[in-house]
Amino acid sequence: MLLKIKTLDIEATDYPLVLLHKDDAKAIGVRRLGRVNVKLGSKEFVAVVDLTERVVAKGEVGLYEYLCDRLDKSCGINAEVTLASPPDSVESIKKKLDGNALSKEELQNIIEDTVENRLSDIELSAFVSGVYTRGLSNEEVINLINSMVSTGQTLDIKRKPIFDKHCIGGVPGNRTTMVVVPILGAAGLTIPKTSSRAISSAAGTTDTMEVLCDVSFHKNEIEKIVNKIGCCIVWGGGVDLAIADDKLIKIRNPLGLDPESLLLASILAKKKASGSQKVVIDIPVGKNAKIKDENFARKLARDFITLGERLEMEIKCIITYGEKPIGRGIGPSLEAIDVLKVLAGDGPYDLREKSCEIAGLLFEMGGKAPRGRGKEIAEQMIDSGKAMSKFREIIGEQGGNAKVKIEDLPIGSYQHTVKSEIEGRIDFMDTRMINMIARACGAPDDKGAGIFFHVEKGERVKKGKDLFTLYAEKDKKIDNALEIINGNPIGVEKVIYDIVEGELSI
Amino acid sequence: MLLKIKTLDIEATDYPLVLLHKDDAKAIGVRRLGRVNVKLGSKEFVAVVDLTERVVAKGEVGLYEYLCDRLDKSCGINAEVTLASPPDSVESIKKKLDGNALSKEELQNIIEDTVENRLSDIELSAFVSGVYTRGLSNEEVINLINSMVSTGQTLDIKRKPIFDKHCIGGVPGNRTTMVVVPILGAAGLTIPKTSSRAISSAAGTTDTMEVLCDVSFHKNEIEKIVNKIGCCIVWGGGVDLAIADDKLIKIRNPLGLDPESLLLASILAKKKASGSQKVVIDIPVGKNAKIKDENFARKLARDFITLGERLEMEIKCIITYGEKPIGRGIGPSLEAIDVLKVLAGDGPYDLREKSCEIAGLLFEMGGKAPRGRGKEIAEQMIDSGKAMSKFREIIGEQGGNAKVKIEDLPIGSYQHTVKSEIEGRIDFMDTRMINMIARACGAPDDKGAGIFFHVEKGERVKKGKDLFTLYAEKDKKIDNALEIINGNPIGVEKVIYDIVEGELSI
Repeated sequence: MLLKIKTLDIEATDYPLVLLHKDDAKAIGVRRLGRVNVKLGSKEFVAVVDLTERVVAKGEVGLYEYLCDRLDKSCGINAEVTLASPPDSVESIKKKLDGNALSKEELQNIIEDTVENRLSDIELSAFVSGVYTRGLSNEEVINLINSMVSTGQTLDIKRKPIFDKHCIGGVPGNRTTMVVVPILGAAGLTIPKTSSRAISSAAGTTDTMEVLCDVSFHKNEIEKIVNKIGCCIVWGGGVDLAIADDKLIKIRNPLGLDPESLLLASILAKKKASGSQKVVIDIPVGKNAKIKDENFARKLARDFITLGERLEMEIKCIITYGEKPIGRGIGPSLEAIDVLKVLAGDGPYDLREKSCEIAGLLFEMGGKAPRGRGKEIAEQMIDSGKAMSKFREIIGEQGGNAKVKIEDLPIGSYQHTVKSEIEGRIDFMDTRMINMIARACGAPDDKGAGIFFHVEKGERVKKGKDLFTLYAEKDKKIDNALEIINGNPIGVEKVIYDIVEGELSI
Repeated sequence: MLLKIKTLDIEATDYPLVLLHKDDAKAIGVRRLGRVNVKLGSKEFVAVVDLTERVVAKGEVGLYEYLCDRLDKSCGINAEVTLASPPDSVESIKKKLDGNALSKEELQNIIEDTVENRLSDIELSAFVSGVYTRGLSNEEVINLINSMVSTGQTLDIKRKPIFDKHCIGGVPGNRTTMVVVPILGAAGLTIPKTSSRAISSAAGTTDTMEVLCDVSFHKNEIEKIVNKIGCCIVWGGGVDLAIADDKLIKIRNPLGLDPESLLLASILAKKKASGSQKVVIDIPVGKNAKIKDENFARKLARDFITLGERLEMEIKCIITYGEKPIGRGIGPSLEAIDVLKVLAGDGPYDLREKSCEIAGLLFEMGGKAPRGRGKEIAEQMIDSGKAMSKFREIIGEQGGNAKVKIEDLPIGSYQHTVKSEIEGRIDFMDTRMINMIARACGAPDDKGAGIFFHVEKGERVKKGKDLFTLYAEKDKKIDNALEIINGNPIGVEKVIYDIVEGELSI
């Protein structure tokens, strides 16, 4: 059917979507969320259909931004719109929902169609649901990972072997990457580290590194830096490693569906695309961490190791305590300060300790230290000042001020300190609420916003002792944060919770 | 966050959707497909979020049609947009994906949120996927049906008991409803029949009835007609019986997911909402019918009967042959002609036979005939002319010409007859291709378009015998249809398929 083009300046979806009048759709034989072939001049696209009785008249086809962007002079004023079939991968999605294993080719098709925007949101949702309910075998996960790698960009790093680390997430202030990378780099190892931004937390590694230098680089820029100095700490979103994974995450997040097989594939595809050969994965366990159960953490660790072997990647996992923040500061600048202090041989003990454990394991995996002695080398790198020098080199290469001092970092000028109302011991730190408060203060966008803890978990405090200070760049944000604090983010243990008097009801 | 309203004259989805600038979304803490609370003057809506960097500027919120339609003078120029949680039913959907049974309250919430447009397409897709993979227990199906009934309209018919029939579908020309309803009505039984339009077939009961009279009536109009004459044949889409089901079908169709439990719930919820007490369900089995396997048809029949008991509905199922069309005509007018002929005591044997079987069963269920004798009464209703009189009464009540003659019905003036090229026996009729050809001719929109068969399955034909005639209202459409015919819709059996000569390869 020949229809007049009407451009709709709306970016509705990641995939091509057209708007048809209900009567035209009926004549073409297509229903809502069905597919049509749209011929625009010499170009042809398969688009998903939405219906209208108003916005587009009979005889017109409405093109959303995705197709508008692809219009050119050759297109004329009309489009030929005909019924199209869904891609074969829709049948494969149904096959997975039916509980069948998918072949290498079927997974490759699903991932290619995902990357090429040929699957609609409801189809991707059905795929995620199918994987969630039916699971994927190791064979399927390997094929999925290889498809994700082959349809995205890969880093081409000359210096081998390539080391890497990854944290499953969910622990505020956990900036070990910014300590581990300079330690490894100082010892001459190669670690092209890509990180993410905060999603629901107060700061990701990327947000924190951004306080000190640029983080957004293209593939060839990253390769140039790493081939020169052996390491980097950049934003993964600047380079399309395993881009299919990003598209699946967009569907998984709002559904809150985190199937184990996609978690494994997501992480390992990005490591594979970076060329990583020796990897330590940090799995924090805690009731507000991503992994809530230690047994599941152990199973996940075994799966990482098994899959790693098939991907020619040596993997070790560390299962860590995830019930408290790491370091003293929460928020980009405050976390960067902790990192600079640790690299100066000072700073929070837990951040230093955890980073040296991870770096030490990697030294041992790389044959740079005998078993059980890697941590010592990591500590030497810090105490000799070599790690700090390397960190400054990274900052310089990434366009920052290599001579940056702690006093240079922006800190919110609006502050509020909360004191203990009783004497006791710091009994719990609610990491979820800590993130919420730091975000209310303005983190991660306001670099100087966040929380600084004056106390550690387990410490004994007297009444009136400073517990933590809120920092914000805008006055109003402190008030927002204080509202949330009603439920206290850290708890001081009392011996007696309450005394109940009067008659008990039976 | 206070944002300036920008109206976007686009109906993007059935649920409220707003477009936010990426930076504002980040500040609010919401991701793509997450939810925000939108305060428009005194009104408040929860909307799903899409993101832009272009169409809507920082500081603006783009409202799609759904919310634009709800703007009024009290709204002002700004909207207060804040982070909102997904409805609880999203958790229940996840629970189903995890393989758990859902409680009555959880199913009620899902269905209410579906009807109130509070669930996004990807969430509904996850629900359909969850039901597809995990199934629903009979208990869950009953609760689902009751929720669908309670959230939609219900017919209030005074004359009891209420009879009904339903066909699972997939057989061209299967217009038994238009024969069964007047037979029952002629005998004084009550049958408020709602039907659907063709989706992928050449004509639905609604499309065919529409050749003779109006089919689109509101709830109170339907009640008035049925309370007066005992029966009707109207479009179900004109009255929102079990409206949640329509919304789920919109998601199920493009995914091609037809979980048995949703098929059962869909049909039974609509019957329950019509107040039906005695129902015959026709389950055609054939390779192009909806049900392909006879054993599955038997299981489905047992499930219908069991669920019916719990819904206080007496159900009988007939499993029928679905490998050929019913009647001679395919397409609205041609099928209406078959119906008028059968009611006149003439016409295709199979349409008369099947209709009388169904009507007979209903007579027996209603105590109007002893077991095994219902069909005779049905035949008497036709042969006495009483069924035809009742049919004309229905047509008149529904605003049509009660004195309509076959010659009055529109028949496409462009015709093309296909003859047999060989002598043999009619071996198969490809119902899927028959639908495609009739649709290519213009059915169901062009009422006079379609196919008329001069032969029946099993009949012996000589070379040159007329097999079928195509009818179209537009010349071009005959050509379109002829293109499809390359693959023949009916096959004439040859004794010898081919003679292979020369050396055989081993």
